Amino acid sequence: MSQLFVRTLREDPADAEVPSHAWLVRAGYIRRAAPGIYSWLPLGLKVLQNVERIVREEMDAIGGQEVRFPALLPREPYDATGRWTDYGPNIFRLKDRKGADYLLGPTHEEMFALAVKDLYSSYKDLPLTIYQIQTKYRDEPRPRAGILRGREFIMKDSYTFDIDVDSFREQYALHRAAYIKIFDRLGFEYVIVSAMSGAMGGSASEEFLALSETGEDTFVRSPGGYAANVEAVRTPTPDPVPYDDVPAAHVEDTPDTPTIASLVALANERFPRDDRPWTGADTLKNVVLMVSEPGGKSAPLVLGLPGDREVDLKRVQAQLEPAEVEVFDAFDDYPMLVKGYIGPQVLGEESGSGIRYLVDPRVGEGTRWITGANVNGQHVFDLVAGRDFTPDGYLEAAELREGDPAPDGSGPLELARGIEMGHIFQLGTRYAEALGLRVLDQNGKLVTVTMGSYGLGVSRAVAAVADNTCDEKGLAWPRELAPYKVHVVVAGKDAAALAWATELATSLDEAGVTVLLDDRKASPGVKFADAEILGMPTIVVVGRGFADGLVEVRDRRSGERRDVGVDDALAEVVAHAHGRLDLEVSVRG
Amino acid sequence: MSQLFVRTLREDPADAEVPSHAWLVRAGYIRRAAPGIYSWLPLGLKVLQNVERIVREEMDAIGGQEVRFPALLPREPYDATGRWTDYGPNIFRLKDRKGADYLLGPTHEEMFALAVKDLYSSYKDLPLTIYQIQTKYRDEPRPRAGILRGREFIMKDSYTFDIDVDSFREQYALHRAAYIKIFDRLGFEYVIVSAMSGAMGGSASEEFLALSETGEDTFVRSPGGYAANVEAVRTPTPDPVPYDDVPAAHVEDTPDTPTIASLVALANERFPRDDRPWTGADTLKNVVLMVSEPGGKSAPLVLGLPGDREVDLKRVQAQLEPAEVEVFDAFDDYPMLVKGYIGPQVLGEESGSGIRYLVDPRVGEGTRWITGANVNGQHVFDLVAGRDFTPDGYLEAAELREGDPAPDGSGPLELARGIEMGHIFQLGTRYAEALGLRVLDQNGKLVTVTMGSYGLGVSRAVAAVADNTCDEKGLAWPRELAPYKVHVVVAGKDAAALAWATELATSLDEAGVTVLLDDRKASPGVKFADAEILGMPTIVVVGRGFADGLVEVRDRRSGERRDVGVDDALAEVVAHAHGRLDLEVSVRG
Repeated sequence: MSQLFVRTLREDPADAEVPSHAWLVRAGYIRRAAPGIYSWLPLGLKVLQNVERIVREEMDAIGGQEVRFPALLPREPYDATGRWTDYGPNIFRLKDRKGADYLLGPTHEEMFALAVKDLYSSYKDLPLTIYQIQTKYRDEPRPRAGILRGREFIMKDSYTFDIDVDSFREQYALHRAAYIKIFDRLGFEYVIVSAMSGAMGGSASEEFLALSETGEDTFVRSPGGYAANVEAVRTPTPDPVPYDDVPAAHVEDTPDTPTIASLVALANERFPRDDRPWTGADTLKNVVLMVSEPGGKSAPLVLGLPGDREVDLKRVQAQLEPAEVEVFDAFDDYPMLVKGYIGPQVLGEESGSGIRYLVDPRVGEGTRWITGANVNGQHVFDLVAGRDFTPDGYLEAAELREGDPAPDGSGPLELARGIEMGHIFQLGTRYAEALGLRVLDQNGKLVTVTMGSYGLGVSRAVAAVADNTCDEKGLAWPRELAPYKVHVVVAGKDAAALAWATELATSLDEAGVTVLLDDRKASPGVKFADAEILGMPTIVVVGRGFADGLVEVRDRRSGERRDVGVDDALAEVVAHAHGRLDLEVSVRG
Repeated sequence: MSQLFVRTLREDPADAEVPSHAWLVRAGYIRRAAPGIYSWLPLGLKVLQNVERIVREEMDAIGGQEVRFPALLPREPYDATGRWTDYGPNIFRLKDRKGADYLLGPTHEEMFALAVKDLYSSYKDLPLTIYQIQTKYRDEPRPRAGILRGREFIMKDSYTFDIDVDSFREQYALHRAAYIKIFDRLGFEYVIVSAMSGAMGGSASEEFLALSETGEDTFVRSPGGYAANVEAVRTPTPDPVPYDDVPAAHVEDTPDTPTIASLVALANERFPRDDRPWTGADTLKNVVLMVSEPGGKSAPLVLGLPGDREVDLKRVQAQLEPAEVEVFDAFDDYPMLVKGYIGPQVLGEESGSGIRYLVDPRVGEGTRWITGANVNGQHVFDLVAGRDFTPDGYLEAAELREGDPAPDGSGPLELARGIEMGHIFQLGTRYAEALGLRVLDQNGKLVTVTMGSYGLGVSRAVAAVADNTCDEKGLAWPRELAPYKVHVVVAGKDAAALAWATELATSLDEAGVTVLLDDRKASPGVKFADAEILGMPTIVVVGRGFADGLVEVRDRRSGERRDVGVDDALAEVVAHAHGRLDLEVSVRG
């Protein structure tokens, strides 16, 4: 510790939003170099390298072959697949001294496909699994939470190449099993959910989410075992409702009702229902967004959904990718859109406005609504979908709620949050087709190769494990990830204690147990606090008891401790460091 | 081999200039992704990782602590030290989505200094050695020779931090010793030479050069042990020569003498000397260059040197850094510069032209010259330096020659070529001062930290070792770097041979000897050729002799081979793989 390049901090960094970020900075594991860009100090790098080792071992175990592609990539392959444009402002672009276009790679589908095209030509060469552990770049609009969502980060990305979909399925299953092993070894709680594949294209995908209350991803679970990222959930479209008895739509004065709540209150006062009061669910809310295509073209889009639900922008965004969704503030340019009183009568690509109009599946055929009359202070009642208006299509626009019916029909949905740690998906032939990756099959015919793509956040895993394991005193690493297995604290100024502790550290080192020795001239209080912040799994205290031939062995996670005799110390510490020794709470406490 | 992601090529790639480039591509170790940017395929990556491991072990052994800084760096620290500008077009620059300036790090002096400033504050914290093994970027004007001079490459860069120069010297010595160990382990021939520190600043530096006839660096050696990069050699300035007897300068007609040879021929014909013929060494050649300062300002510079020597642009460039030297082609803008007939009379910052004029040290006070008269077809004779003209200063402009006197006075210089593999130097306080890196000394006074900087080309080392060890058949790796220690070739279609070879491979693997098994259905000729191209140190052939219970063990480098009985094969192959077994040429040849 007297020589280690580390300093612990007493205060959380000002920008820390999640515990892992605060503790990794306070414990001197990482430092911010720029927004979303971090440096790894010695302790942090050791954890990162431990994660890399675990990932490498499990990828090798399923026959993955490690390669390493450049991070600085030429534009051409990304043009061929359209991603140069599709990524929009989300990738870093630059020019070299000759003016040629380059990007900093976000993922490497193109380069891997081209490498296989370069080397392979026959079905005999397949299947193939290649992977890399590499620094990647994304120009995130909102880098946050330290290394949890950075702009420079380390990922393992692997790719499979198969002659057909059946063979691909086997590879996918192998990857899925390898991911389970990796996440089990990393030692945090996670779930596997169905997912959208986003800008990656492809037709089937699953995400591995670390459970975390502060996670950016929301997922749902059903009693029947269905689990999906909210972006992937498809609300069952209700059967058409008969509307023969519904009176013709009629416009009513509804002054000062720009919100759903004010509208419902007024409707119940002036136009009460016989059977029950009006609720927000009877109103049709129309929300305007601005949608920018990758090429740069922008157009408004109106989303219709029941008034008691909010728009979930992440779900909308996921369905409209690669287009980007932004807030709409161009009401001046679209006078037919009367803010607060927008109704479907003026919407739709076939309408006079030409404005695209998509509705939530709950706005199904025959449903009956109170909605805007496109005039300030007026709403229309008894407007029936399919009779009085026809949307351009359906979009999962509404937020999901705890208790919504599960798509598998097994009961109510449960909502929870997580951090995306891994994403595995079928790319199909999208990239192979765009780049001409074909091989000869058994009959000598050229067939396009089927690809799979498998990402795993290596630097993010460090943060996720930290989040999952830290407590109010600091970090508390699982044994396989800890920078050192044992932290020996010399408490007090006894020269004999320091000499003995140094000898213990040397013996541990020789026994293959990595050890951090706190040999500083600091107070015991400072040293104990640092040992708890730094989070090595086994702490050995050489302190007051040493004069009586005793040292204390502590378990950082459980807080359990016990005194052991100096002669037994080496064996007991080695046993604890290997997880073979449970500690009891000692009488001395 | 039937599953390894590799293909060997029969032809050299079109752009291969050096053997390492040709063989690394032909053997499927690397692939070009863009100019100066390469992908590492499985075999290449294994060699690279072996180099990384050796470097890491030796850096750890001198107390180096590994860290990892970002490659994508904010502009500000590089502005503080002036390098944002100084690097000119040699770094990659980019903007993020908010328009902030970033660069891709070429070296990390600034970031390391800032990290130490962030964590440390006292002399008690020092000395400190921290290092990283990391992907770096330089926008080379002429990327060449594969991974030997790339634009994205892997370097180990370390930095030392000391309270004073004495302490720094100890750290420098440790690094020097560690580099010697690393290069000895990598197993190629190298020399240590004095060097300029270039854009890095600082006051003392040494380079480790791999000997290579195709190397870009030229260095000199003297019989007395002096060794230096040519950029660093300082020609001894001769003592002033008395010129009392030299007649006044006189202009003569010298039509059609734009070259030194034509001028010498004419001088000997029309103005012969009594004592000996005129030679090129009697003429003063004045060469115009254009020099661009990092800010963008350009101005001509004239270099005067004896006519029998050429200008060495690399030496000139090194002395003028961070300015860039280019060919001059603006004679139209400078009518006083008469092409082919330029003389010092119109040159100098104090002259009418204001053009800077620097001369080679050989143009010392009192030397007498034939040189241009600044009029087409005329030269001036008996022009004496210090009497008839005074340069603005001296510059090492001339190429060095085999046989030139050594600066240490020990005799003639020998010239040779090499590849820069490592560069260690004293940065002094330049960076620490620019970034405010100060610590309290023993007396409580703030002192600026003394830094050292130590680079080592990790990816380049792969190429240098390949260059040093390959032969006309392919690569031939030293044992510590080889992707696999043993290559087992199954020659022929005998199922029993394949089964036995597979068992041998498994046993080798279990014995900790990495092994590549060629189990392909290919002809023995193809397999032998591939084994020689791929270059594993030990080759085992399971072929014709197998029926008689014999297999052949070959040494890839020496070509030595011998037959061993199948029962002894495992032990003998393990011994050879560990370098403990010399092979004799077998009788069967």
